[in-house]
Parts: sequence; C-alpha cells; structure tokens
Amino acid sequence: MALYRGKIRVKAKGFCSIHDITNNVAEILRLSGLSQGICCVSISGSTAAVSTVEYEPGLVLDIPTLLEKLIPSNVSYEHDKTWHDNNGFSHLRSFLIKTSLSLSFNEGKLDLGTWQQIVFVDFDNRPRTREITVQFIGE
Amino acid sequence: MALYRGKIRVKAKGFCSIHDITNNVAEILRLSGLSQGICCVSISGSTAAVSTVEYEPGLVLDIPTLLEKLIPSNVSYEHDKTWHDNNGFSHLRSFLIKTSLSLSFNEGKLDLGTWQQIVFVDFDNRPRTREITVQFIGE
Amino acid sequence: MALYRGKIRVKAKGFCSIHDITNNVAEILRLSGLSQGICCVSISGSTAAVSTVEYEPGLVLDIPTLLEKLIPSNVSYEHDKTWHDNNGFSHLRSFLIKTSLSLSFNEGKLDLGTWQQIVFVDFDNRPRTREITVQFIGE
Repeated sequence: MALYRGKIRVKAKGFCSIHDITNNVAEILRLSGLSQGICCVSISGSTAAVSTVEYEPGLVLDIPTLLEKLIPSNVSYEHDKTWHDNNGFSHLRSFLIKTSLSLSFNEGKLDLGTWQQIVFVDFDNRPRTREITVQFIGE
Repeated sequence: MALYRGKIRVKAKGFCSIHDITNNVAEILRLSGLSQGICCVSISGSTAAVSTVEYEPGLVLDIPTLLEKLIPSNVSYEHDKTWHDNNGFSHLRSFLIKTSLSLSFNEGKLDLGTWQQIVFVDFDNRPRTREITVQFIGE
Repeated sequence: MALYRGKIRVKAKGFCSIHDITNNVAEILRLSGLSQGICCVSISGSTAAVSTVEYEPGLVLDIPTLLEKLIPSNVSYEHDKTWHDNNGFSHLRSFLIKTSLSLSFNEGKLDLGTWQQIVFVDFDNRPRTREITVQFIGE
C-alpha cells in the first residue's frame, strides 16, 4: 500500500467559474503508478468547492444560475457586515457544495462515467490562482 | 492493510427514486474480512447521487419534494436546449448532492446510526440499471 | 501504512448549532503520529452534518438563515406526520449537507486553509451530546 500526492494549479476568475480538472487528477494517478484505491481531491480555502458534473457549456451556465437562486450574491450577509469583503455568498456556497471529494479508482482509472468530470468551482468575488490537493492511497 | 472492492446493481426508476443500499455495502464489508478503515461509495454517472438518510416512507416522499423545490424539473435549463434530453434538472441535482460518499468502519461495522441508511438516489428521467462501486481500504 | 481512530464529543444545542471541531481533529491526528494520508470525519445519526466553513460569528448566523430558507423548520413534512417528532427538516438538512467529510493531510497537518474550519452542525430540534468519529489512514 502506498501514498501519492499532487497539486493542481488553476487560474480562476471567481464568480462561480467552473474548471474541469479530471485530466489533471488522472495524470497524477498515472504518475503515482497506483492501480486501485481511494483519492481525496480538496481545495484549501472557504470560498470554493469540488464536485462532479457533465462538463458541457449548458450546465456551465446552469450551475451559476442555480447557485444564484439558492444563495444570491446581491444579499447582504452577516459575514459582509463584519468583514466588508462582500463574499458572504461565496462562503455559504462553499459550505453547501463542500471543499473536498472522495473518489475510488481501479486498474489505474478513476471511477467516473464517460460524461462525468471532476470540477473545481470558484465562488469567490475576485480572480486568483488556486491550488487543489490530490491525495491518493492504494496499491 | 488491504483493498477490497465490490459492485451493487440497482434497478432504478429515476425521477428521484431512493434506494436503501446499506445492507449491500455491509455485505461487501463482510466479504472483505476487513475490520477498520475507510470506504468510498460512488456512482459512475452524472444524474444520480449517494447520501445518508433515515430510510422511512415519510422522508422518501419529502426528499423528492425538496429537490423539486430547490431544482425544479419543469424548467428549461441550458443543458436541455443543447442536448434535448430534458434532464438538466437531474444533472444539477447530482452536482448538488454528489455522486460519492466516504464512510469509516470499525470492528467490521459501518459507522452509521441505527436510523441512518446509505441511499442511492436516481435523479434521471428514465428507468435504468445502475451500478454502484464500493471501495474499501483498511485492515 | 497505519490506521488511527478517535472520537470527539460535542454538547450540541441543536437548531442548526455550529461547532468548530478543527482542533479536536488536529489533536487526534497528532496522537496518531501519522504524517500523510486521508481522514474521514463523520457523525452517526441522520439529523446532523459535517462540512467546512470560515468559523466566524457572521457566517455562524448566515448558515441557519440559509438552511431556514432552503429547508424551513415550520413546514409539516411527511416524516412528521408519521413520527410526530417534528424534525423532518433536520433529516432533510442532514441529507443535503451530509454526515461525513473526507480530508487529506500532509506533514502531520490537515489540508485546510487558514480561515477554513471543520464544523459539526446539529440540525435536530433538541439538545443532546453528539459523538463524532475521526478515522485516519496513512503513514
């Protein structure tokens, strides 16, 4: 049994920008030489999230619309009254969608469907470079 | 430390059908012979999800009602405009609830409460047979 | 590769009370002596959840407001009609936010941002002592 760890850097625009990181995670798996096990994909920070979705232009528009409905960006949250960074909505979206995802893999391939991608979603209200951690355990 | 892996097949009706797969996961754990560790339960695909809930008839009605409110099925999403499969809502629900779940186990038992079951939820708009992957790591 | 397991007890008030358990998880990691790997933080039960958030007084108010909007507590759910414990909303919130969270760690430190805490959220409608399980795998 072995551990392997990698990082993915994403230049994110924020405002619910959605990034397909499937190939990046698969490449780290390839470098690991591992065949079977569990993987944890996570972002350090509290204004972004990781999930899976069919990464296609329609859903890339639908997800921001959904989140705008569930957790509007134009509301003054208690967080904003204290910190004045106006990203209370970003924090709440991250709490809801979550900053980490666990996946399994077998025969060197992630257990994902053909039309299922791992996505990093940046909910913050400014552009920034983000670093995603990918931790594998297996053999 | 060892790995063990199993599959669960579910005949799902779709439209937010909810399936209790706790006994199936527990049976794979029994077959593994493992005592303590971590397990990843996941569905390959982008129109279904895995979570936990008290599996009882009331909540089995409440969950579809909740998802219909949060992500209505009678809305035309951008996804549908391109692909015309009318399951944009299924994809968004899967993105929100997520396709994988990690659990721990000890002394050969999953760390779940008495009234807490692992559920597979099919959000798609047609019946199909689904395959759930269960990956254990432990000793 | 080794396993290590610990428990965290929280006196929770319920009604969406939010508890920062980051230091508790970090202390169990320290006791484990492990450097790198994956951790699963979970609550046995179906009326609570685990996620991450910037634990600060504003968001501690915003999260209950958000959940009250998404899954109101003053609605009569099907669950309540059967069981009369009036906590249908607690179950649905737990299903949505989920009872477990996977995290990675490296050099003995959890992969979390400076302003990102692991939180246990109790959605039930009464105070109770809760036990959270923390399972580490790594080396």
